[in-house]
Amino acid sequence: MSVSSLQVAILGASGYTGGDAIRLLACHPNVTLMALIAQRHAGEAVEDVWPHLGATDLPDMVTPEQVDWEHVDAVVCGLPHGTFQAMSTDLPDHVKIIDMSADFRLRDKEVYAHWYGQPHAAPDMQEQAVYGLTEFYRNDIAVARLVACPGCYPTAVLLALLPLVSERCITPEDLIIDAKSGVSGAGRGLKQQNLFSEIAEAMHPYNVGSHRSVSEIEQELSRAGGVPVMVNFTPHLVPLNRGELVTVYARLGQGQTADDARRILSTRYEAEPFVNVLEAGHTPATRQVRGSNLCQIGVFADRLPERVIIVAAIDNLVKGSSGQAVQNLNLMFGFDETTGLEQKPLFP
Amino acid sequence: MSVSSLQVAILGASGYTGGDAIRLLACHPNVTLMALIAQRHAGEAVEDVWPHLGATDLPDMVTPEQVDWEHVDAVVCGLPHGTFQAMSTDLPDHVKIIDMSADFRLRDKEVYAHWYGQPHAAPDMQEQAVYGLTEFYRNDIAVARLVACPGCYPTAVLLALLPLVSERCITPEDLIIDAKSGVSGAGRGLKQQNLFSEIAEAMHPYNVGSHRSVSEIEQELSRAGGVPVMVNFTPHLVPLNRGELVTVYARLGQGQTADDARRILSTRYEAEPFVNVLEAGHTPATRQVRGSNLCQIGVFADRLPERVIIVAAIDNLVKGSSGQAVQNLNLMFGFDETTGLEQKPLFP
Amino acid sequence: MSVSSLQVAILGASGYTGGDAIRLLACHPNVTLMALIAQRHAGEAVEDVWPHLGATDLPDMVTPEQVDWEHVDAVVCGLPHGTFQAMSTDLPDHVKIIDMSADFRLRDKEVYAHWYGQPHAAPDMQEQAVYGLTEFYRNDIAVARLVACPGCYPTAVLLALLPLVSERCITPEDLIIDAKSGVSGAGRGLKQQNLFSEIAEAMHPYNVGSHRSVSEIEQELSRAGGVPVMVNFTPHLVPLNRGELVTVYARLGQGQTADDARRILSTRYEAEPFVNVLEAGHTPATRQVRGSNLCQIGVFADRLPERVIIVAAIDNLVKGSSGQAVQNLNLMFGFDETTGLEQKPLFP
Amino acid sequence: MSVSSLQVAILGASGYTGGDAIRLLACHPNVTLMALIAQRHAGEAVEDVWPHLGATDLPDMVTPEQVDWEHVDAVVCGLPHGTFQAMSTDLPDHVKIIDMSADFRLRDKEVYAHWYGQPHAAPDMQEQAVYGLTEFYRNDIAVARLVACPGCYPTAVLLALLPLVSERCITPEDLIIDAKSGVSGAGRGLKQQNLFSEIAEAMHPYNVGSHRSVSEIEQELSRAGGVPVMVNFTPHLVPLNRGELVTVYARLGQGQTADDARRILSTRYEAEPFVNVLEAGHTPATRQVRGSNLCQIGVFADRLPERVIIVAAIDNLVKGSSGQAVQNLNLMFGFDETTGLEQKPLFP
Repeated sequence: MSVSSLQVAILGASGYTGGDAIRLLACHPNVTLMALIAQRHAGEAVEDVWPHLGATDLPDMVTPEQVDWEHVDAVVCGLPHGTFQAMSTDLPDHVKIIDMSADFRLRDKEVYAHWYGQPHAAPDMQEQAVYGLTEFYRNDIAVARLVACPGCYPTAVLLALLPLVSERCITPEDLIIDAKSGVSGAGRGLKQQNLFSEIAEAMHPYNVGSHRSVSEIEQELSRAGGVPVMVNFTPHLVPLNRGELVTVYARLGQGQTADDARRILSTRYEAEPFVNVLEAGHTPATRQVRGSNLCQIGVFADRLPERVIIVAAIDNLVKGSSGQAVQNLNLMFGFDETTGLEQKPLFP
Repeated sequence: MSVSSLQVAILGASGYTGGDAIRLLACHPNVTLMALIAQRHAGEAVEDVWPHLGATDLPDMVTPEQVDWEHVDAVVCGLPHGTFQAMSTDLPDHVKIIDMSADFRLRDKEVYAHWYGQPHAAPDMQEQAVYGLTEFYRNDIAVARLVACPGCYPTAVLLALLPLVSERCITPEDLIIDAKSGVSGAGRGLKQQNLFSEIAEAMHPYNVGSHRSVSEIEQELSRAGGVPVMVNFTPHLVPLNRGELVTVYARLGQGQTADDARRILSTRYEAEPFVNVLEAGHTPATRQVRGSNLCQIGVFADRLPERVIIVAAIDNLVKGSSGQAVQNLNLMFGFDETTGLEQKPLFP
Repeated sequence: MSVSSLQVAILGASGYTGGDAIRLLACHPNVTLMALIAQRHAGEAVEDVWPHLGATDLPDMVTPEQVDWEHVDAVVCGLPHGTFQAMSTDLPDHVKIIDMSADFRLRDKEVYAHWYGQPHAAPDMQEQAVYGLTEFYRNDIAVARLVACPGCYPTAVLLALLPLVSERCITPEDLIIDAKSGVSGAGRGLKQQNLFSEIAEAMHPYNVGSHRSVSEIEQELSRAGGVPVMVNFTPHLVPLNRGELVTVYARLGQGQTADDARRILSTRYEAEPFVNVLEAGHTPATRQVRGSNLCQIGVFADRLPERVIIVAAIDNLVKGSSGQAVQNLNLMFGFDETTGLEQKPLFP
Repeated sequence: MSVSSLQVAILGASGYTGGDAIRLLACHPNVTLMALIAQRHAGEAVEDVWPHLGATDLPDMVTPEQVDWEHVDAVVCGLPHGTFQAMSTDLPDHVKIIDMSADFRLRDKEVYAHWYGQPHAAPDMQEQAVYGLTEFYRNDIAVARLVACPGCYPTAVLLALLPLVSERCITPEDLIIDAKSGVSGAGRGLKQQNLFSEIAEAMHPYNVGSHRSVSEIEQELSRAGGVPVMVNFTPHLVPLNRGELVTVYARLGQGQTADDARRILSTRYEAEPFVNVLEAGHTPATRQVRGSNLCQIGVFADRLPERVIIVAAIDNLVKGSSGQAVQNLNLMFGFDETTGLEQKPLFP
């Protein structure tokens, strides 16, 4: 790696989003992974935590205290929600932060306290945070110090809906979002519900009516729509590792059609390297984006008059997390936005 | 098996629904499987078609012509849609018919022609057919000659919605039904889309806006509601064998609540052996019904005011097909309705 | 349930083997499940621990102290290895014990201490224990107080090999046993390695050269062969819930052939309800035994001269654990051995 | 893509190995995919055959006749076995061929005829073919016109065994190879046995004693060992898409140990970018190579004296097929051997 490489640290290097960030950045031509931070695994080699990365030349796991922060240009954070806030204020000012957790996604501290059950621990940092939905906050991200990457569900939902709400193609009332996710989104924590035998050959909804993703979705749709938006969001757990699919049932605006919706989305994302609006008759599927930073969006006429169905598929760990983080990092440091994200979806 | 056993033939004995009917009826104390009919497999032993049934004492596969229909009391039919109609008129009058295909489910021949793309081939038989949703047509089924078992999706949807529509707890407008199914529902036919590698570690919607299950659902909801009902029905394919989950987003009737909806369903199904309305806070899951004839229903308040979410889970091959067929057979021949259907769900 | 029902308690009612024993015994016509013992879940309803059994009329979970042992006829134990020994001596003498753990499987206490890393805690109980491989210890089991059911791997291996070793059809040297198991065999404990995302779309060997199943296999093969037998046993983890497959590579005895081996096994198991020796050209598969108490065995000629391949498939939770326990319970209390075990394999 | 790009055609562009070659080569910096040949799909867009490649700028499918062969530098062939031979002689001499099928892997035409049931259709071409196991035929491949890439099973087996046989660390007698594969190795053809519902939640051996991979394995081991080698090779089908694991049970040579075996392999592959010999105590797993061109090898002492266990894991579609093809293409055209193959394994 060249001397002029960007020096990047990963915080939360033993979780699935942290691990996927390592996987992507280990191949990034402009980045050196100079510190992999995982408190409980400090001293362990990468292959002990991530045997799939064993053949890679990477440093051992360390504690945050062991990091030479003076030489860190950027930190990508994949800590559990609520963990990074307190710690964030200790980082030297020159360190740019790309946070994949939920800690800085919500602008309104009261909304944060409501959904996360505790006051925000770093309100000043929150002021500086930019919501890291790359396709919508590109200019802000490029100059930000702290970018709060959206959750995986909000990423798919917002890419599908923001242009339609902005252009009044759909009404912001009665938005019904039925979401399905693979299991890696639940993280690497030890919970009975995440055991193989509990999930394989099975499916079920969870957190019906109370999933925290609602807060981000409503924050951004309200801003786009110019009115307070309230949505139904119902996630389901599906027996696969990577993949997230959202099926949105929406009411069309006055005089609008499904074709109008598709056209608006196609136009909006025409130049976007990672958002792919499918032609009529084609259907998004998670296998078509697996392992890649792509988001596929499809639009379908509903049998019910004046309604439309919008479907979006992403890989929850890539576009829904580490890939989007790398995309933002590229933007923040002036690299081509697609650097390190070129690989095609892995199918089958 | 006793001399007085009911003599049952299976038509379509090489498909998944036929195979599952064999599995269940091979253990039914009042039934003798006297003919397994599978045109293309005639002459083969059961274990060649269904190796999991090889340790069972069952007759070889035969053609319809080889069957001694004089001694058949009942036929359970699992043929592909459109195949049984023409053949149905050839069966002797004394043979009672439990059809698991879609051939006789739609009362209106024009609706049938619309959805299945061809005129009905046995309109006279259709006149006699009873829709085999056991919990709602018990009296008619008990005396019917021909019972048309509902499709797997309509079974789950109608069990969840019929009482609510009848009692005006939900309005029949804007019913949005997001359905997810395991793969066995697609049958044993050779299609690329059903190959393991196309489906494993993947999910996607299919037949968006045009799935034939809509026709049955609307037929029955319209009858229950007393008005023509039109629904959104969007199925998704999920990588598991057995299991079907429907998540319905409905508008509550005037002054109704989610608790009202749960109470109506609980009361309606209190005495039903196979419909289990969960208490508040419990969530239906396909693993909780796998391999059994159970339908689990859960009711959830929506964040959106005046709306409710109803979730139902079944095993598509059992309650959604062969189990419901056995339940109807029991009813038609005076056996206890649960005979042969006692086994508990298989988890994990 | 009749007043004369056998009163059965389940110890370890919250683990997978305990749960599967509940599933089977809840349908057993001669059994009343009078106590479900799960220390950490005492006070919880069955549906809170096992939502798939929620529609069943079963008692709440209790501690061992809460059980009225005077009225318990038999206890089926599914505790983690090493847990039951100390407790076993406290049970009243009239209580018959069917233990699914490894605590009493090894006759030689030193062998036990070697493989389990601690001295046996109830050596006197061990003296009375009968090894519960039903097909080989039927007479002893029928009169035993304490039956130690074999592990799931040993069950499949021993059913495949014991008759061949006894009759010198294969030599007991250089036995190579390549085993593959679904994940439910690893139990419901919280370990990272059992998380869905660690296992799905993956496979690997584990405990190479050091799996405890070796001790039971060698104990029984040595007895059958009349000489100390040492085997290679290499287990692999495969992404499915239920199913165990062992592929044994053996050297044929002087003048023996694969056909001889098949004939010996067929003859030996001709009258056995749960062991199914396949004809030449048919292949065992876990899908063909899933959810049932069946063991399928197939014999194949090897390309290598004077060698043979024997393959056995079981459902690790049924024939490999709870089903075999029920089979033994039937034997100990004079019920037909197949009672409660009649259900056919669940496929797909 | 630069004007000086290598012009590559894919033959069999609609099969899984062809599709995976497209996936990899679409990102290869020195390659232009100028023709995707799929007879039955000619005229279709890439996204109709491979929706996961829809966002890529690639040409439509064509017939072989539609290709401007004058401008083709290399063809990567993923046709079904037996299909390419006849066609191979029609290709202009300047076109270099990387064949992923079995058509040119066997040097001895009689061995070919024996295993493939028909005489070789292009014996002259066979004379020129080089066996494409990169790590062992690097010099020949670099100057070859026709490279016959090994099958997926032989790739893993030979990487694990060749150095050990060559150096007499293991004896070539009684080699027992228990292999397990994901389902993509079975191809995209329509066979009942490849349907999702036949495979999910299941496993079984297949082609016991008669799998064609034996022929390649024996050809290469015999050459390395200098004596005719005969092996047991028993493949099993496991419910995952990508991944192949071989567990080899071998007898150690005089005075050799498992540690010797590991040392020999480590030394042999020290400079190899894609072969990773694990340290003692580490275990190969398919999840650790998924989606990458890596082969992981582990060596384990056997309980049985004088024996050793060698385990190798690859992604059957990458190192076992398209990745190895790209590696060979790089070698044949003077690119760095790792070009286009840098991506890390995808886990989870």
